[in-house]
Amino acid sequence: MKIAFQGEAGAYSEQAVFNYFGQVKTLPCESFDAVFDAVNAGKCDAALVPIENSLAGSIHQNYDLLLKNNLHINGEYPLRVRHCLIANPGVKMTEIKKAISHPQALGQCAGYLRSHEIKPEQVYDTAGSVKMLKESGSRDTAAIASRRAAELYGMEILEEGIEDNPENYTRFLAISKEVTTPEGEAKTSIVFTLKNVPGALFKALSVFALRDIDLTKIESRPLQGSPWEYLFYIDFIGATHEAHVQKALDHLDEYAVMLRVLGSYARFKG
Amino acid sequence: MKIAFQGEAGAYSEQAVFNYFGQVKTLPCESFDAVFDAVNAGKCDAALVPIENSLAGSIHQNYDLLLKNNLHINGEYPLRVRHCLIANPGVKMTEIKKAISHPQALGQCAGYLRSHEIKPEQVYDTAGSVKMLKESGSRDTAAIASRRAAELYGMEILEEGIEDNPENYTRFLAISKEVTTPEGEAKTSIVFTLKNVPGALFKALSVFALRDIDLTKIESRPLQGSPWEYLFYIDFIGATHEAHVQKALDHLDEYAVMLRVLGSYARFKG
Repeated sequence: MKIAFQGEAGAYSEQAVFNYFGQVKTLPCESFDAVFDAVNAGKCDAALVPIENSLAGSIHQNYDLLLKNNLHINGEYPLRVRHCLIANPGVKMTEIKKAISHPQALGQCAGYLRSHEIKPEQVYDTAGSVKMLKESGSRDTAAIASRRAAELYGMEILEEGIEDNPENYTRFLAISKEVTTPEGEAKTSIVFTLKNVPGALFKALSVFALRDIDLTKIESRPLQGSPWEYLFYIDFIGATHEAHVQKALDHLDEYAVMLRVLGSYARFKG
Repeated sequence: MKIAFQGEAGAYSEQAVFNYFGQVKTLPCESFDAVFDAVNAGKCDAALVPIENSLAGSIHQNYDLLLKNNLHINGEYPLRVRHCLIANPGVKMTEIKKAISHPQALGQCAGYLRSHEIKPEQVYDTAGSVKMLKESGSRDTAAIASRRAAELYGMEILEEGIEDNPENYTRFLAISKEVTTPEGEAKTSIVFTLKNVPGALFKALSVFALRDIDLTKIESRPLQGSPWEYLFYIDFIGATHEAHVQKALDHLDEYAVMLRVLGSYARFKG
């Protein structure tokens, strides 16, 4: 098995790949576009992409890519994000004046950095910041990244779990060309558009509410070329092979201009 | 009147300030946080902040700042975004090998840049890219920014309207410490949380649908500290001084854990 992810070796996404798929080969990709392209081109068996973070919100680019590509969601995995303050070997905490990392990681450790008088500086990637730090050999700079990134580059962890809010999870989706049928409790992800008329979204949600189907997420994205009209992405409990779900989707199809099932997959249980 | 905006002089946000408020003084701010701080501290009479783009979607940071700060929305303004390819005086189109701008502007002109074999390079700001280009005096580089930024820095526009999709609008919100009562057709923006139970969002939307109140936007944002629970932001047609709107909000209050009105304001008519 080879699994694609976005980022460099040691990225949080790669950690999520190993946690979810076990000991597989990984294919690091420069961008989310490149991840989807790798799946389409058969360069990997599947990919794992982040879809939302419990603090920062949705990763909208991946919602857009799910729509653009004709792939299927086969699973979900929530990764607990634990940021480490990483330095070159032998460097002491008191020497650190500056921290480099991806803007989102820096933002999630803003309180910690302020209280330790460490100046944040943005770079393109978390694991990449560790690589840069190793290459520079700098003693006044730390990187913020995963434990795995520190180990991979032979660097030292000065402190682990430096994020301001411990409720920091990133939910990943496994995607591939295959349609899978989940066993046990499942989730289904769909995307649809509606006529721009009063009450349209209310009617769309009624198809789930009237059948006691629980929604877990709703996301709206702009409909390209139609300012102030939207695509809706909904996740709900249930799988397309269940009769009540199929009836709800048939019912939604009566109101929807466009409706696509992105996949039914096992709901993650921690 | 002094109006705060995010960015440098010549930013699209500043153009929106002049279009919406007329000939006022402007207060450029480094970040959206700084814009909200300026309003709170009384350093300006109001501010204009972008809330969504018709191609890229919502500017979530400003949704979060509306929640965090106790300010009021007094108006909306949709700016048609027309990107210009800007160069130092005397430079010809054929000399341009590279274009610098904010990542979003580069993304919106990706097709144009590709077809003209111009390499995109990210900088922090659109207007800032013009300033940088002027300072460098470079002849092989162009900046992508507004007409106003080109004029402000005495630079030349090689081509105007280079965005790939002409349906490119950014909707701005006017915010201040004052509560205003709109005349004519109005919009109201609210934010609320619900109990995490099946059908909760459906019930919340029913308070509008049952009164034929038209929703124009729904946005969900993560509830900090409660992974996979959400805040909902809704815009609808109507003002809080109208009886049917007040009844709908009273009804919503029966289901909501938290409910706040962010403002009622005149709906923009182009």
